[in-house]
Amino acid sequence: MRRLALALAATTALVAASPVGAQSVDRTVIARIIDEGTNQSEVMVNSQYLMDMIGPRLTNSPGMRKAEDWTQKKFREWGLSNVHKEGFDFGRGWSIERASVRMVSPRPIQLTAIPIAWTPGTNGTISAPVIVAPMTAERHFDAWRGKLAGKIVMISRPTNGSEETDAPFERLSGDQIAKLDSFRQPRYDPVAADRRLKRNDFQKKLVAFLKAEGAVAFATESYRDGMLLHGEGYLFGVGDTSPIPGIQIAAEDYRRLARIAKVGAAPVLEVMSDVRFDDSDRNAYNIIAEIPGTDPKAGYVMAGGHLDSWVAGDGATDDGAGVMMVMEAARILAKMNVRPKRTIRFALWAGEEQGILGSLAYVEKHLATRGTGTNTQTGLNRYMGWSNRWPVTPQPGYGDLAAYFNIDNGGGKLRGIYAENNIAAAPILREWLAPFASMGAKDVVISKTGGTDHVFMQQVAVPGFQFIQDPLDYESRTHHSNADTFDKLKGDDMRQGSIVLAGMLLQAANAEKPLPRGPVPQQPKVTDPFAYGDPDDDR
Amino acid sequence: MRRLALALAATTALVAASPVGAQSVDRTVIARIIDEGTNQSEVMVNSQYLMDMIGPRLTNSPGMRKAEDWTQKKFREWGLSNVHKEGFDFGRGWSIERASVRMVSPRPIQLTAIPIAWTPGTNGTISAPVIVAPMTAERHFDAWRGKLAGKIVMISRPTNGSEETDAPFERLSGDQIAKLDSFRQPRYDPVAADRRLKRNDFQKKLVAFLKAEGAVAFATESYRDGMLLHGEGYLFGVGDTSPIPGIQIAAEDYRRLARIAKVGAAPVLEVMSDVRFDDSDRNAYNIIAEIPGTDPKAGYVMAGGHLDSWVAGDGATDDGAGVMMVMEAARILAKMNVRPKRTIRFALWAGEEQGILGSLAYVEKHLATRGTGTNTQTGLNRYMGWSNRWPVTPQPGYGDLAAYFNIDNGGGKLRGIYAENNIAAAPILREWLAPFASMGAKDVVISKTGGTDHVFMQQVAVPGFQFIQDPLDYESRTHHSNADTFDKLKGDDMRQGSIVLAGMLLQAANAEKPLPRGPVPQQPKVTDPFAYGDPDDDR
Repeated sequence: MRRLALALAATTALVAASPVGAQSVDRTVIARIIDEGTNQSEVMVNSQYLMDMIGPRLTNSPGMRKAEDWTQKKFREWGLSNVHKEGFDFGRGWSIERASVRMVSPRPIQLTAIPIAWTPGTNGTISAPVIVAPMTAERHFDAWRGKLAGKIVMISRPTNGSEETDAPFERLSGDQIAKLDSFRQPRYDPVAADRRLKRNDFQKKLVAFLKAEGAVAFATESYRDGMLLHGEGYLFGVGDTSPIPGIQIAAEDYRRLARIAKVGAAPVLEVMSDVRFDDSDRNAYNIIAEIPGTDPKAGYVMAGGHLDSWVAGDGATDDGAGVMMVMEAARILAKMNVRPKRTIRFALWAGEEQGILGSLAYVEKHLATRGTGTNTQTGLNRYMGWSNRWPVTPQPGYGDLAAYFNIDNGGGKLRGIYAENNIAAAPILREWLAPFASMGAKDVVISKTGGTDHVFMQQVAVPGFQFIQDPLDYESRTHHSNADTFDKLKGDDMRQGSIVLAGMLLQAANAEKPLPRGPVPQQPKVTDPFAYGDPDDDR
Repeated sequence: MRRLALALAATTALVAASPVGAQSVDRTVIARIIDEGTNQSEVMVNSQYLMDMIGPRLTNSPGMRKAEDWTQKKFREWGLSNVHKEGFDFGRGWSIERASVRMVSPRPIQLTAIPIAWTPGTNGTISAPVIVAPMTAERHFDAWRGKLAGKIVMISRPTNGSEETDAPFERLSGDQIAKLDSFRQPRYDPVAADRRLKRNDFQKKLVAFLKAEGAVAFATESYRDGMLLHGEGYLFGVGDTSPIPGIQIAAEDYRRLARIAKVGAAPVLEVMSDVRFDDSDRNAYNIIAEIPGTDPKAGYVMAGGHLDSWVAGDGATDDGAGVMMVMEAARILAKMNVRPKRTIRFALWAGEEQGILGSLAYVEKHLATRGTGTNTQTGLNRYMGWSNRWPVTPQPGYGDLAAYFNIDNGGGKLRGIYAENNIAAAPILREWLAPFASMGAKDVVISKTGGTDHVFMQQVAVPGFQFIQDPLDYESRTHHSNADTFDKLKGDDMRQGSIVLAGMLLQAANAEKPLPRGPVPQQPKVTDPFAYGDPDDDR
């Protein structure tokens, strides 16, 4: 009893020391969230359905279409309001029906391989010798001209085996989190950005070159060892897809092919890739649902994850986990019949894996546009170029989004949140996390994190944040791989994440003021005008 | 200069402190071994040929036959003497031509799977629903009787995902090696041994039951996470092979099937397994080669590794690496034209993966037999039962084998040697390792190690030893898996191992006396007659 009394006293002290003062949500309400999110949790049952029964959700694929329907249906079942989808121009639908890659000479071996996303099928089985012809820039084409006809072109430079001395499964220590709490000055280098944009066109030129030379297919090396596959491809636009089939081969198998080709006759492969394009609807769709606020002038808060995934696994940790935590937070709050001051909006993004395109479309429609005239770039180029267009022009609704929370770092529990250099917001975020300290979520670190759906909001100074999560085996094994399956999700982590998110959203929705944000960004000065760029940018 | 002088002084002191005194091999000869094994090394070129061009070497498979021929050819090229093969009764030949496993319902997905060794093919593509029916003992059959007709029976109990917090790639620290230097008393429990023997027959009963019930195939779960495959099977004897096809499915894919089956209609699989049996020669063959000794009465020393491998990878670290180090040691010593006192014999074993059967056949033929009457057990049962047969009867040649060195712990460099409780041999082994301390091989630990080709020699008190090796990614990833490929071999390690082995062999061949050995073993007393056995033994 004494220990308990001390713990209660400590909690009270923490609240008293809070920088903002008044709690926007009573702790008895937080306790109800925890009860609903543990004893009545549905997050693992729903996760199993999304990952196992629907499976991979490449943007505009049949799996993604099913997921769009199913998630809206669930939101409606739970009593969410304004459930709808918002379309944006994306590109082609594509899915794998079956595939097989075999070495037939010098000896038979079934290889571990996967069709590269959005490449065409082989229309039956093709048989051809390989040629190892690594190309990473147009200037490499000359060396291979006239040598590729009738070949399967191995375009990756074969790597050596890795020596992985980090544990594959990891939970963050306090020290590791503390290191993230360090302000790094922003960088602006428009020349480098333009070069990256240019380099991004190389893939299109490469497949056109391969086709012109008469190559029958191309092959890449998987970037993780241990027979893992990924199969990402980025030529998804209508009119942009590769004219010849592409396959990604497991690193061990790819290296063996390259070694055999080096010492003697080129190995001969049999490739069968049966894939399906679906161009019936070019639009991708973000899924939106809401718990309406009681004050129509107070704006809204929002949480999101991306519903789309890659094709090799079932998109469990990337980002089925984030989507399921967002949906479970919605279910918990709806079940509790909360009546928040601000509307709480839930967003399941599409096209994240092809350049954060779903949330970018949302930003352009609801928050702010960039540049003058029409942005004619599409796909990955739109993503690459967007941050370098000026000025930023707020749209109606720019001021309405009081806070955005994103989850997209795997299935690990939430340990804290990145404050994205927002010095003014950090103490408020810390206050909102305080009730969840004993569940492992307590740290607010000042640093930024990228690569997912809060970044374009951040770029227009809308307060969007991403949580810190325990990595588990996200980096080592599951991220984008064929091992990204439901069994990688941990029930305790998934329930904790759902609860913390629900609590953060409700506190943000009821907070007296929206989270502080900076002014509308102006074109920055070049940060280091006398520095030489990365020589890789010249490739 | 001063540091070097100190180092030399230390070396001299070590030699002076040696328990045996006179060095059997001058250090200038060791230096020549090192020169030949580094500057003129052929171990990686030969390894590439064995792993990439010949590939997996399941005992009696076409790959193993090729390897038998190629290794003899290389030994002859290098000038080894008495190069020949020694046959022993084994069983059927088997190899994979092609294979494909797909889930077709509830959604299409190409699964990661491999035919289980020595199971028959599907004769085209079969399509059937799965049923999850874990069985590990005959008493489990009743629950499934009448339910398996027309099904693919998933006989493994689905596991949960692993949380691997050990580094996948490891080199041993001094502390780790020091822990191995601990004498553990031997254990003798004939009842447990008999139970294991009985349990081993279960697999045959299981496949017969599945066939009788009308199952069309069976499936097991791979025992490593991360999409790795293994495909071991032990029913290889003529008349013993499974009557229905068996496939091993990657853990992630197997669990998904089990979950889907649990929540709704059973998933339907399409299985195509195109495998080949070859019964033209039931015999497996050990490969033998020699450097003749100058003293016909001095007997011989021997080194060995096993040439056979499993089917999923190319048998690089298990045990291509050991075989290649043994062969490179032979090449180095032959090239140097050594004239040792004792004959140096090199042995490449067959049937190791099915119960250490090649070296067992060697022991029975050349060293000692066990039991009375004819041992009619075959295959794994012969292995399981052999240690429990009494008395041990020495054969002509029993005393001739002065020392045996085995390499079969992956591709990592040699760090020392297990003395196998042989207190008398330990200081001599330590002396022989001394010249290689600066190469990382120096520790002699008293403990025993099992599971490979020195064990049956040890069991009849012939001094056979296995080296301590850096694990690298043997345990985490390559052992028996489809990732056991040439790229896992490290040139520095392979050269070091070859050099150390050549040095050990030459010193053993020239030593004044054979290594000390104990008396011919008598049937031991039951070690702990009042202890209860492992309850698992009752299964």
